[in-house]
Amino acid sequence: GLPASEYGDKKEWVKLNVGGTCFLTTRTTLTKDPESLFAKLINDDISGMVTDGKDENGAIMFDRDPTYFSPILNFLRHGKMVINKDVAEEGVLEEAEFFNVAEAIRLVRERIRVRDNEKQQRPAGKQ
Amino acid sequence: GLPASEYGDKKEWVKLNVGGTCFLTTRTTLTKDPESLFAKLINDDISGMVTDGKDENGAIMFDRDPTYFSPILNFLRHGKMVINKDVAEEGVLEEAEFFNVAEAIRLVRERIRVRDNEKQQRPAGKQ
Amino acid sequence: GLPASEYGDKKEWVKLNVGGTCFLTTRTTLTKDPESLFAKLINDDISGMVTDGKDENGAIMFDRDPTYFSPILNFLRHGKMVINKDVAEEGVLEEAEFFNVAEAIRLVRERIRVRDNEKQQRPAGKQ
Amino acid sequence: GLPASEYGDKKEWVKLNVGGTCFLTTRTTLTKDPESLFAKLINDDISGMVTDGKDENGAIMFDRDPTYFSPILNFLRHGKMVINKDVAEEGVLEEAEFFNVAEAIRLVRERIRVRDNEKQQRPAGKQ
Amino acid sequence: GLPASEYGDKKEWVKLNVGGTCFLTTRTTLTKDPESLFAKLINDDISGMVTDGKDENGAIMFDRDPTYFSPILNFLRHGKMVINKDVAEEGVLEEAEFFNVAEAIRLVRERIRVRDNEKQQRPAGKQ
Repeated sequence: GLPASEYGDKKEWVKLNVGGTCFLTTRTTLTKDPESLFAKLINDDISGMVTDGKDENGAIMFDRDPTYFSPILNFLRHGKMVINKDVAEEGVLEEAEFFNVAEAIRLVRERIRVRDNEKQQRPAGKQ
Repeated sequence: GLPASEYGDKKEWVKLNVGGTCFLTTRTTLTKDPESLFAKLINDDISGMVTDGKDENGAIMFDRDPTYFSPILNFLRHGKMVINKDVAEEGVLEEAEFFNVAEAIRLVRERIRVRDNEKQQRPAGKQ
Repeated sequence: GLPASEYGDKKEWVKLNVGGTCFLTTRTTLTKDPESLFAKLINDDISGMVTDGKDENGAIMFDRDPTYFSPILNFLRHGKMVINKDVAEEGVLEEAEFFNVAEAIRLVRERIRVRDNEKQQRPAGKQ
Repeated sequence: GLPASEYGDKKEWVKLNVGGTCFLTTRTTLTKDPESLFAKLINDDISGMVTDGKDENGAIMFDRDPTYFSPILNFLRHGKMVINKDVAEEGVLEEAEFFNVAEAIRLVRERIRVRDNEKQQRPAGKQ
Repeated sequence: GLPASEYGDKKEWVKLNVGGTCFLTTRTTLTKDPESLFAKLINDDISGMVTDGKDENGAIMFDRDPTYFSPILNFLRHGKMVINKDVAEEGVLEEAEFFNVAEAIRLVRERIRVRDNEKQQRPAGKQ
């Protein structure tokens, strides 16, 4: 089991509005990679940002796609790159690059490399 | 048919907000595995938790992904591990481990083992 | 075309909240199989149920998964068992059994039997 | 580019609540096939219908499944039958028949015929 | 990392209601292709449009399908055509043509050409 501190700690919850879909996460998750756009947004706390870039529910707005954003947020949550079978890896790579999460970029590129390698080994026409 | 008690019993409904998506379930479901994080949260009833970790609709907030959370909640509901064909098993394992549901962890690991076994038996390139 | 009565009839609309997702249907649909849990709920009209088991929008709450519930509701609507290609049949069977819709149980079991049969005829490794 | 009239025209927007999911469309789209249930609903303007069959947001309610309804609405929008790869064609056919859109029925049946034909040509076990 | 200007700039956020689903984006994204329907809508700023074509949340309404619209909006965001594995390419082409995004049309057509080519090289029955 998890130690009490895991859920007993007060968390700073942060709402994100990514292309119209709401995500809920914490400041701890978003600042895990200090070089990422998330960490910069949260840490720099650029005044003006606070009201300008938020929607009517107080969620920080991003002009990005929610489908491909999910794996990036999950990576920050638990450090693994999990992509569903129907999702195009290139979409996830694009988000990893946009939000500048270096380790996520590396992991998605590696996955694309493996995928394309397997494809080439197959005879033409997916036989 | 189900006996009247199955739906006649008063249920304590619990709302969860998992990464921005709302889930509805009951106290009975969440406390089924007494070692799980759910049971600890519900039973310990840590004061402070009650208001701090809840959103504006009274839902308990978790900084996790809703897609991979569903199979865990379903497992607590009916004891079976059901994972859709397009969902990455590794994502479900991650949630089972985070929420510390021992039997769910065992079932997902077994499924991954079987899946990887079948893959190896196939000649290279998915022939 | 449908006769006017098909849509001219006054319908009793019923809202369901299945695990956090809202469904809209009618009393006619829910009572189609008199042995099902739905019919019992609607017909018995157990007092207490009316307020206890409803959410803030007046929807009857079920502690079940919405993904696997859909095919059951559709079956009651039109009598056919339609399951999308990425959905695990075992999840639908679980719901059919929970809600006690006998014909739906039979149809899903038959589908699983056919699926497993086809799998066995294939050589190992999905060749 | 589209002529100004394409989007300059005043449109009569219509909201639909299909099994709990909201769709937004126009009167023009819904009346494209005059024999369809949509056209009859809109044109006949049966009194009683106006309030009885609408939800709290003024959306016309249908006791049908939103997943399989989408391709029918899209067909009325642009005249093409587009079905995603994970969607069961039988579900779309059921909706096409319910809403009585003749050309959509024809197109889905043709697609099912082609699909089953391809299957039969494959040796047993999807080799 | 991104330069401060990337997120420090004041953005003009625009809400879209595409067939009942809400999207959030910016004026900059929507006007990227000056020949597109989006750019015309935003730039011409046809009076009347401002109130007539907006829903109760101020979102510009389109009578189109949200599933196939996503890849078009993403293309305007980052210039790449990313389509998930379960999505029918023909649906995306239809939206690219409707919204008149020339480069998106070219990219989807190329993808369909490649897909059909691969299919033809396969022996009948997907062997």
